[in-house]
Amino acid sequence: PDWSVQTRDGIDQLERLFTFENFERALAFTNQIGALAESEAHHPALLTEWGKVTVTWWTHKIKGLHKNDFIMAAKTDQAFAGAFST
Amino acid sequence: PDWSVQTRDGIDQLERLFTFENFERALAFTNQIGALAESEAHHPALLTEWGKVTVTWWTHKIKGLHKNDFIMAAKTDQAFAGAFST
Repeated sequence: PDWSVQTRDGIDQLERLFTFENFERALAFTNQIGALAESEAHHPALLTEWGKVTVTWWTHKIKGLHKNDFIMAAKTDQAFAGAFST
Repeated sequence: PDWSVQTRDGIDQLERLFTFENFERALAFTNQIGALAESEAHHPALLTEWGKVTVTWWTHKIKGLHKNDFIMAAKTDQAFAGAFST
C-alpha cells in the first residue's frame, strides 16, 4: 500500500492509508501529521478511525496536485517510519 | 447543520460536520472526541481538515446504528458546546 492519486469532484488528491494497532496509536499519528502540517502551513485531510489513518494531500488553491504535495507525502512517510523505528 | 444519517456500502451512519476557526482548533476537537471514544470504548471516524471536523458514528458489529451511537452523538454535541461556552 502506497500513495495513490484519487480524483474527487474533479480534484486530484494524493492519498495513503496507514495502519496501527489501535485507536490511540492512530490518533497519535494524526497529531504528528497535524504538527507537520502546521509547521509547513499546508494542511491535509486526516481521517482517523480505529487502527487506521487515511492521509490526503492536495493544494486547495490550484484544486489539484502541486510539487509540494508530493514533498508532504514523503514527509508523512518519514514520520510514519520514524514512529516505528524503535 | 445537525446530525444526518448517511448510508455507505449499505451501512447507516450518523454524521455531523463541526466547523472551527483554524486547523489547530479542529485538531483539538478531534482529540477531545478521541478521548471520549477511548473512555467509552466506542470509536467514530474523525475527518480532520482545515477549520472542520466531520464526526461519523456507527456500530461496526451490527453494521448500522445502535442506541449507543445516538448517545455518542449527543455527547459529541456536548463536547462541542463545552469547548465554546467560555
